[in-house]
Amino acid sequence: MRVIVIGGAGFIGSNLCKRLLEMGHQVACFDNFSLGNEDNIRELEKNSKFELVKGDASKLDELDEVFTTFKPEYVFHLAANSDIQASASNPDVEYVNTYSTTFQILSCMRKHNIKKLFFSSTSAVYGDKRDVELDENTPGLAPISYYGAAKLGSEALISAFSYMNDMSVLVFRFPNVIGENLTHGVIYDFMHRLKEDSSQLRILGDGRQTKPYIYVQDLVDAMLQFMEAPQGVTLYNVGVEGATSVTKIADIICEEMGLKNVKYNYTGGEGGWKGDVPRFQYNIDKIHVAGWKAKYNSDEAVRITVRKNLEA
Amino acid sequence: MRVIVIGGAGFIGSNLCKRLLEMGHQVACFDNFSLGNEDNIRELEKNSKFELVKGDASKLDELDEVFTTFKPEYVFHLAANSDIQASASNPDVEYVNTYSTTFQILSCMRKHNIKKLFFSSTSAVYGDKRDVELDENTPGLAPISYYGAAKLGSEALISAFSYMNDMSVLVFRFPNVIGENLTHGVIYDFMHRLKEDSSQLRILGDGRQTKPYIYVQDLVDAMLQFMEAPQGVTLYNVGVEGATSVTKIADIICEEMGLKNVKYNYTGGEGGWKGDVPRFQYNIDKIHVAGWKAKYNSDEAVRITVRKNLEA
Repeated sequence: MRVIVIGGAGFIGSNLCKRLLEMGHQVACFDNFSLGNEDNIRELEKNSKFELVKGDASKLDELDEVFTTFKPEYVFHLAANSDIQASASNPDVEYVNTYSTTFQILSCMRKHNIKKLFFSSTSAVYGDKRDVELDENTPGLAPISYYGAAKLGSEALISAFSYMNDMSVLVFRFPNVIGENLTHGVIYDFMHRLKEDSSQLRILGDGRQTKPYIYVQDLVDAMLQFMEAPQGVTLYNVGVEGATSVTKIADIICEEMGLKNVKYNYTGGEGGWKGDVPRFQYNIDKIHVAGWKAKYNSDEAVRITVRKNLEA
Repeated sequence: MRVIVIGGAGFIGSNLCKRLLEMGHQVACFDNFSLGNEDNIRELEKNSKFELVKGDASKLDELDEVFTTFKPEYVFHLAANSDIQASASNPDVEYVNTYSTTFQILSCMRKHNIKKLFFSSTSAVYGDKRDVELDENTPGLAPISYYGAAKLGSEALISAFSYMNDMSVLVFRFPNVIGENLTHGVIYDFMHRLKEDSSQLRILGDGRQTKPYIYVQDLVDAMLQFMEAPQGVTLYNVGVEGATSVTKIADIICEEMGLKNVKYNYTGGEGGWKGDVPRFQYNIDKIHVAGWKAKYNSDEAVRITVRKNLEA
């Protein structure tokens, strides 16, 4: 199949491209390299079934060109600002990179009569509902970050475009994803800072912010298993067993890096930054019943990620 | 208070401006006159507390200018494409006029440190859930029109901006609004077409599409009663008792226009057009408990609207 991965040079996108090529698909990787990275796809460029197209998914004409030449049958939309902390001080980033990309991709699919889409959404659409076990039918979605807002707005667009144009869309809401080719986030930050100074580590909040972390290969497994969705929108929470606190992440990194007696300096307070959701409970029964389960739990995902990034 | 009404020359906006002036507020009416109409505000321009500013709310610099000079303390955001049927063939209209206006208004409020907002949302955010009584906590919002999608995306933005910037926002989700200064919709269309040819009337669908219609003065009452909301987002479904079928609307118009033996030609099918929600049940207990109730039920709202528009 002819598959375009928009945001294909990014963290999740590059891991997905690799797996799609292994399955024998013809893959176009479309990326603006704002967060994507040529290093992530250098190996893939040797594959004759892979092509790289530099372009901005928030611009209809640039999408239109690749849709015209490559003629994709399936669109993976992974283009977004994925650094929530960064956009907290500049909501324009989410407007352009997260919402407008979705609008223009859907508009281009509508124009070219393309019916199949995967969309990467997020647990951030729910907002801060720490006392509720979040399932796909939890009411009152109230994002507290501009990122979550732009993703929920994107889901709303997908709902209308799929109805109006008979599209088949798979939407995954997933929490933090980690693994090979990580570009930012707490693990990335801690590892970089400990390489510079292994005597101490500054930790935002009280270190007890606890979230589920999913290993990227587990996520890609789920994307590939369910990519052929029925007409309409099929929505899954995708996650793992367990959750890992920030302090536990620091502990695992120190263990894997062979560091002892690192002093943790907590900044205090409960959240890492405004717009961060410090704790949540994620119900993933729906996708389990449908036949997928993550191989790695949250702590294991953190450990394997640290190892892969130390090897790289 | 210094109040800016964005979309103030439109159908609801012009009725709101009039009432705000009667209450003694200083009112800036900001409108791009795409759907708004100078006729709607001609009387108001005689009032020294009223000023008209022509501008496009999807452009930050144009908003910034009026926020700098007028210094509003309260923002009513009524700017949107309100003609759902028209945007069904051109989703860009909703992207620019419904979603981007909200994003830029919120960005401008953030920049100018303005905390108070009213936002006009819609029953279209729910999508086609005809077997469910829709209340504010109905889960699985799935708009089927680009209009509903852009409004739900706007609500998501409001959720994040209000959290990040400590805003106090009142959001009303309302169904069809009718009354003085109507610019489009089924009543407007039927009256115009019957004036041209009183022997027959073409009706989309089977005429049994049944919706609640709220009289604009009732809606404005509710907006003014609850405009001072607490910090965060306060959301209400706003509606009326009963609902009116399209055939009943035609009957009321014929009665009020004194027409007899008009032949109704039904196009057939259940919905008026794709993206239209043919039937829904609206739970308005929350706002009733809070102390507001529409004076006119749906049939009465239709009749008074026909009379007001015949007088005009």
